[in-house]
Amino acid sequence: MKLVRFLVQDRPTYGVLNNDEVTELEGDFSSLKTLKARHALADITLLAPCVPTKVVAAGLNYRDHAQELGLAVPEEPILFLKPPTTVIGPGEAIIYPQMSAQVDFEAELAIVIKDQTRHIAPEEARDHILGYTCANDVTARDLQRKDGQWTRAKSFDTFCPIGPWVETELDPDDLLVESYLNGKQRQSSRTSQFIFPADLLVSFVSRVMTLFPGDSILTGTPVGIGPMQGGDEIEVRIEGIGSLRNTVKK
Amino acid sequence: MKLVRFLVQDRPTYGVLNNDEVTELEGDFSSLKTLKARHALADITLLAPCVPTKVVAAGLNYRDHAQELGLAVPEEPILFLKPPTTVIGPGEAIIYPQMSAQVDFEAELAIVIKDQTRHIAPEEARDHILGYTCANDVTARDLQRKDGQWTRAKSFDTFCPIGPWVETELDPDDLLVESYLNGKQRQSSRTSQFIFPADLLVSFVSRVMTLFPGDSILTGTPVGIGPMQGGDEIEVRIEGIGSLRNTVKK
Repeated sequence: MKLVRFLVQDRPTYGVLNNDEVTELEGDFSSLKTLKARHALADITLLAPCVPTKVVAAGLNYRDHAQELGLAVPEEPILFLKPPTTVIGPGEAIIYPQMSAQVDFEAELAIVIKDQTRHIAPEEARDHILGYTCANDVTARDLQRKDGQWTRAKSFDTFCPIGPWVETELDPDDLLVESYLNGKQRQSSRTSQFIFPADLLVSFVSRVMTLFPGDSILTGTPVGIGPMQGGDEIEVRIEGIGSLRNTVKK
Repeated sequence: MKLVRFLVQDRPTYGVLNNDEVTELEGDFSSLKTLKARHALADITLLAPCVPTKVVAAGLNYRDHAQELGLAVPEEPILFLKPPTTVIGPGEAIIYPQMSAQVDFEAELAIVIKDQTRHIAPEEARDHILGYTCANDVTARDLQRKDGQWTRAKSFDTFCPIGPWVETELDPDDLLVESYLNGKQRQSSRTSQFIFPADLLVSFVSRVMTLFPGDSILTGTPVGIGPMQGGDEIEVRIEGIGSLRNTVKK
């Protein structure tokens, strides 16, 4: 099932996508009770498919990306946070901040949490995962280098495009993850390269903090990250989910 | 004025504290319209005085603490985030996580934001500050060292005690900031030692991300941080505000 969030007369509304047609949901994804109202996908504006109270991300989770940065493979996931104000939806603009001179794309599989979750084992994780979507962990690389701490570099408004929908029926352990900058492939790897698989990440994060419905866990990015310029189109494409496209505005 | 948040029949309610008596507010602090209902301070349970959508913190903001850690004074604030799930109120327990073997206190002045704020200059900051309160930036020091990134170490549930109230009439630039572990003074410094003053911090953070009412900015901790054990009482005391006491539960 593909869960979307979209605008109906300026009101954010959840829905289920089937064959280019969206059926409205009553409330959010917690009940999955459908209403009668339907919309053609072409007629609606998709929003980020979830509203995270927090976006937790794992750094260095692909072996090839750790090598690209010349860093050792970590023993445990290295976590960082992106504030909810970073989240934008498909088609929305990534705003290039004045503070930075190098803003990079990072294609990532995002896990979306289903319910309030704390202290769970990896084998329980699937019960608490709503599904998966595409994300772009946009990063001001120059500020990441300067600060040492990654937070500022990854926390600018618009620095976390998510979407286009949450795919609820998917095995996350061997998916093709790609990015395309102005139509040209820049990243291409598989989630089978994860140092820490999705279930382990959810368990690990839940041992640190309580997760809530809609919270998102970004699973790291593969080799091939690179800078974007004003006017660029960046696409994150993940097998079994779809394609998340955003433009860069300077 | 001292703004509090407290429970009235299990319902979180905002109020104004005057001479040990709390007058209820209609809604939150955005209107400051008082109602007739009054309560003796001794009869109510105080909550964290604000509900942040994010807690932004500045590392290494006292010259003496930077020296304590053997680190250079930064050119710009080093930011990190604590998720909203870290926030607890006065008297609530700091839960010692299984993952860590060294949990430290860090006494900090917290700035509480008044309204939606983005891209403001330092000289505009006071217009967007609701007031100031005490905070404890609880940190799993062993995990901070291990990860390099500070996020996990500072993100465990209960790792951000805030309170007891927001003092709205206060000049933040020269206040005594202290911590007491089991009644014994452990930290004592003044905000005049800030590398980056409060107004500059608010401006800096607002150039990265949109701030919302209740969002909190922690201003760094002075020399003297140290570990806590199960059963300890930790107190953060700030001149002109008051005292925030929490116990540690292992």
